[in-house]
Amino acid sequence: MFEISFGSDNHSGVHPLILKALTEANSGYCPAYGDDPLTQRVLAKLEALFGNDCEAFIVMTGTGANVLSLQTLIRSYNAVICANTAHINVDECGAVQKNTSARLVVIEVPDGKLSPELIEPRLMGNRDQHHSQMNVISISQSTEYGTLYSLREIKALADFAHARGMYLHLDGARLANAAAALDIDFRTMCKDTGVDLVSLGGTKNGMLFGEAIISFRPDLTEDLRFYRKQCNQLFSKMRFISAQFDAYLSDELWRSNALHANRMAALLASRLAEIGELCITQKPQVNSVFVKLPHALIAPLQEEYHFYTWDEAGDEVRLMCSFDTTEEHIDHLCGRIRELLET
Amino acid sequence: MFEISFGSDNHSGVHPLILKALTEANSGYCPAYGDDPLTQRVLAKLEALFGNDCEAFIVMTGTGANVLSLQTLIRSYNAVICANTAHINVDECGAVQKNTSARLVVIEVPDGKLSPELIEPRLMGNRDQHHSQMNVISISQSTEYGTLYSLREIKALADFAHARGMYLHLDGARLANAAAALDIDFRTMCKDTGVDLVSLGGTKNGMLFGEAIISFRPDLTEDLRFYRKQCNQLFSKMRFISAQFDAYLSDELWRSNALHANRMAALLASRLAEIGELCITQKPQVNSVFVKLPHALIAPLQEEYHFYTWDEAGDEVRLMCSFDTTEEHIDHLCGRIRELLET
Amino acid sequence: MFEISFGSDNHSGVHPLILKALTEANSGYCPAYGDDPLTQRVLAKLEALFGNDCEAFIVMTGTGANVLSLQTLIRSYNAVICANTAHINVDECGAVQKNTSARLVVIEVPDGKLSPELIEPRLMGNRDQHHSQMNVISISQSTEYGTLYSLREIKALADFAHARGMYLHLDGARLANAAAALDIDFRTMCKDTGVDLVSLGGTKNGMLFGEAIISFRPDLTEDLRFYRKQCNQLFSKMRFISAQFDAYLSDELWRSNALHANRMAALLASRLAEIGELCITQKPQVNSVFVKLPHALIAPLQEEYHFYTWDEAGDEVRLMCSFDTTEEHIDHLCGRIRELLET
Amino acid sequence: MFEISFGSDNHSGVHPLILKALTEANSGYCPAYGDDPLTQRVLAKLEALFGNDCEAFIVMTGTGANVLSLQTLIRSYNAVICANTAHINVDECGAVQKNTSARLVVIEVPDGKLSPELIEPRLMGNRDQHHSQMNVISISQSTEYGTLYSLREIKALADFAHARGMYLHLDGARLANAAAALDIDFRTMCKDTGVDLVSLGGTKNGMLFGEAIISFRPDLTEDLRFYRKQCNQLFSKMRFISAQFDAYLSDELWRSNALHANRMAALLASRLAEIGELCITQKPQVNSVFVKLPHALIAPLQEEYHFYTWDEAGDEVRLMCSFDTTEEHIDHLCGRIRELLET
Repeated sequence: MFEISFGSDNHSGVHPLILKALTEANSGYCPAYGDDPLTQRVLAKLEALFGNDCEAFIVMTGTGANVLSLQTLIRSYNAVICANTAHINVDECGAVQKNTSARLVVIEVPDGKLSPELIEPRLMGNRDQHHSQMNVISISQSTEYGTLYSLREIKALADFAHARGMYLHLDGARLANAAAALDIDFRTMCKDTGVDLVSLGGTKNGMLFGEAIISFRPDLTEDLRFYRKQCNQLFSKMRFISAQFDAYLSDELWRSNALHANRMAALLASRLAEIGELCITQKPQVNSVFVKLPHALIAPLQEEYHFYTWDEAGDEVRLMCSFDTTEEHIDHLCGRIRELLET
Repeated sequence: MFEISFGSDNHSGVHPLILKALTEANSGYCPAYGDDPLTQRVLAKLEALFGNDCEAFIVMTGTGANVLSLQTLIRSYNAVICANTAHINVDECGAVQKNTSARLVVIEVPDGKLSPELIEPRLMGNRDQHHSQMNVISISQSTEYGTLYSLREIKALADFAHARGMYLHLDGARLANAAAALDIDFRTMCKDTGVDLVSLGGTKNGMLFGEAIISFRPDLTEDLRFYRKQCNQLFSKMRFISAQFDAYLSDELWRSNALHANRMAALLASRLAEIGELCITQKPQVNSVFVKLPHALIAPLQEEYHFYTWDEAGDEVRLMCSFDTTEEHIDHLCGRIRELLET
Repeated sequence: MFEISFGSDNHSGVHPLILKALTEANSGYCPAYGDDPLTQRVLAKLEALFGNDCEAFIVMTGTGANVLSLQTLIRSYNAVICANTAHINVDECGAVQKNTSARLVVIEVPDGKLSPELIEPRLMGNRDQHHSQMNVISISQSTEYGTLYSLREIKALADFAHARGMYLHLDGARLANAAAALDIDFRTMCKDTGVDLVSLGGTKNGMLFGEAIISFRPDLTEDLRFYRKQCNQLFSKMRFISAQFDAYLSDELWRSNALHANRMAALLASRLAEIGELCITQKPQVNSVFVKLPHALIAPLQEEYHFYTWDEAGDEVRLMCSFDTTEEHIDHLCGRIRELLET
Repeated sequence: MFEISFGSDNHSGVHPLILKALTEANSGYCPAYGDDPLTQRVLAKLEALFGNDCEAFIVMTGTGANVLSLQTLIRSYNAVICANTAHINVDECGAVQKNTSARLVVIEVPDGKLSPELIEPRLMGNRDQHHSQMNVISISQSTEYGTLYSLREIKALADFAHARGMYLHLDGARLANAAAALDIDFRTMCKDTGVDLVSLGGTKNGMLFGEAIISFRPDLTEDLRFYRKQCNQLFSKMRFISAQFDAYLSDELWRSNALHANRMAALLASRLAEIGELCITQKPQVNSVFVKLPHALIAPLQEEYHFYTWDEAGDEVRLMCSFDTTEEHIDHLCGRIRELLET
């Protein structure tokens, strides 16, 4: 156990207001599986937040949200285009392939971001029976490298996709951090740019558990609830996720949590930049800082703070901030780095 | 919303001691995905409870526990033998088929229970390449009809299975209710009878969420954790399930919850039996009562109490008791039934 | 090896006219995978035979034809209703489940035939997220028990299915035998009754290999060719199946082959009926005879003739006739049976 | 239709000796699905050819052979490492993913060939539950670019794989061409180098259809026959593939066919090299020639000869020779190229 962790935003616990809401939901009997009135209200709230004309579904995990989003858009002969850095490619143990039996077409990118220019040469552009038919582009906002797509970039991808009969899926495990960083709302980010399906994260921004799928294509997701059950993502005591979302969406708690985490990362980046021998490797736009550390520092630092190395050489590390990261944590870490550098 | 529900044991909320433990776990940073010390302690506790020589895995849902148990035992050309009443057959939207691509061989039973005599005639007994190879028997204890296997019956099934190179899986979504009713512990129920894999329920007996898989065949389940991730059952903030299990297993809270629910069902059954025109259809051995009601009563009763009809005709209903069902609830329901019968 | 086999209609070789056509196709170069002119002509011929407004696809095996037909109609949360005797249930090693990850809902029938009355009680009739959504009825014509659906019976099933938003699939591995027995053409059998998809057999009626799928719902099967490749059913040197179909469809060779096989079965049945101690168990309407033999006869008969026992007791046997079964074969078998009965 | 095709070696028909053997097999009755004596003999012949201590399985298509080989080696959480040029990656419409639900890890290579050096950096080297576990390396011999692995290179890959608990699969759709080019036998190529599973092609070297899987790990493939049925690769009238293999293996017909095709490609390459403005892009080691043509030539050439372009720009073409390519074909093509270049 560590007093301080920059390991992941899921190393944090639950925001007090969310835990309070969860606790308060523990009263009386409720129909299970989402047939309770609180869930119905929360779904409407989610849909309103995304601009209506959409349908929200509550699921349990981020991997589940991605799997279900893609499952509804593809059949086994399809392929999903994603960046090599994508969570669906790297960190889900092949869950997309397991559940859909389809393939990922993986494009190498330096910064976690796809673009029409990167995708175009990979398209087969035909209906040849020997080739998987690519029909989804999946992007992460913010990306796994803590970078951001601009609204214009998302719209360009959506337009590119739609012009070719393809869909745009957005893995928004950290959509709150992205919206906070860009100072916009979810509707502007997703509906106005033309995203088709969104995986909306909660767990990494202060919820205990609970994610949502927002579908701007309800015609394509009318059977999503069957897949949700089949893919082990239907929660029985649903009110307890709904109560969390209720708090999460009230007074834009999602935004204040995300803003805090983003600010802490910005602070951490600026403090690290002040230390001479370090190299920030990705523009820190949300709540993570990627930085190259002198190799000899890493082992002693990891004895005190939890964080992950990100490259094969083991020099680049990811430092992740969360809704409950404090300035003291940052000072503590930076102080220790200075100390180690001096010895 | 209903003041009183006999709809399901997952219509109840969370037991106060469990919610307390969950709340107390909300402190500091923890490695995610089960690498925290609390999870490690709880896994050891679970394994001890089942007699050691076993391996415990924490998962999120009951369907997930069943899917993962079976996934590790079968390949797509295998088949799982189960009762027509089995949750894996009736209530999981084909999740086993979705995840394993294998088949269920469904045997019609009147009381939810399989036996070697029922299974024997269905075995193909050969290695013919045209036939799915049956290699798992899956039973529920207690069954979906609220009935129980005796220890001798479980052992007979385990011996039958093992003699044919097959495995015995036990869906224990309500294993606590069964153990309470039989006044035994989990080790006696499972290890001593020869069960190979157990899905251990928590959600239906007072937990918020969280189930476990107990494997007495660690050689077969060494890769289960990969399937757990692929099947969307790996929880990130694992400490919050572990904390629940910690409370659930302390001072046999699982048993006292289950005993209470069972006693309420027994009381309900006896009260109903006192009312002349009703017919109890299954021996109420755990926390449910199956009873045929005069058709005209059902609609008005369902306006006040939540419960499900169980047959096509819509006369047989399931009345489920929970850890927080009270004698007042039962009196209330029975009083209303009498009232309706008299009018 | 056996001089005489009643084991299966695929124990026969290839009809000489079909082998001749195959041999003659062995000239020059052809585009592969069906892009050759002969294949295009044969597909048009098949479509004309089924009344146009349909689309034909050539595949390699009967199991492949069934898998692909169902694959296009269902998703993993669906279920296919079939008789317990169905080839897709009994003899394909779970290929439908393997390829579709969906489930079969199996209905016990005495004679291989489904009906709306048998199906109705099994329908869930709702969109409950806990239940596989049944959306296909699959029947075999002729059935695996050598029985036939009348046109009226097929139409009743099609109407029943369509009224409920379901589809009717027909496994026509022996459709030629059925059409010959009913003295109708394929159009009358399938299009006029409302069948949605047909697996049309060739292998069991004198072809070397090659089956077809006839889709009366081209809107649903426009991506079938991708599944065909994925499911290992796309043949490279396609002209060699097409040439066989060309001969098979010319001068109704399919019908004369089937008529002969049917007549031989009728003859065999009548000869067996003349022998006192035997019991014909299914009405022999096409090319098979199901008969109960005295147990002691079976082993010595199987030393001389190839055939299969069909029940667990091992008394009922299936005697299958083919396009090249002769009256001498039948006399030989019946003579031997009489001999054995007399000793 | 084209008088001359360099499109693919499956644009050719069937070698006369193979067609003769197939025709002669059309006599009398045979048990289906491989239970006939000819199939048993042919399997033994195949096994002997590969050095015994192996098990042979007959399948229908090359894609089927690859799918089944990999299916037996992996589970859904595994990954198969292959070159970007691999048939399993490019030309099978995602059949591996469809059938195994696992992933391909695709490595970009210039010449179709993998090496330990290329693979090493892609290995995760751990048992992290978030990552697909790579456990198979799949190579093609000869490659899709007409290049060859030396025996030493294959052995290095096998040793590399085995040292890491992985397997080596060899896609030998054109293994005959490779063995002919290297002047070795199949045993030396596969058993002596340590290959675990081989897909052995027949169709592209003069057979009508029919491939085989050679397993040097019978412990891993004992259930392959169930997958073969499930994956639609079990042929009923098996004797007709076996008869072809019987001829194919007699007097090394496979080698003479392959040698001829290889020689024709060598001749074609040398003739093309004599023409000034062309660029041979891959070393032509077996029966294909990859060459860049002036763009203006391609359309008029494709009106007369069948062949495929191989790059996005459409300048590089693949010219494939077959067992029945003639020197006249080559002269004809080269003459036409010269003509077009002069105009």
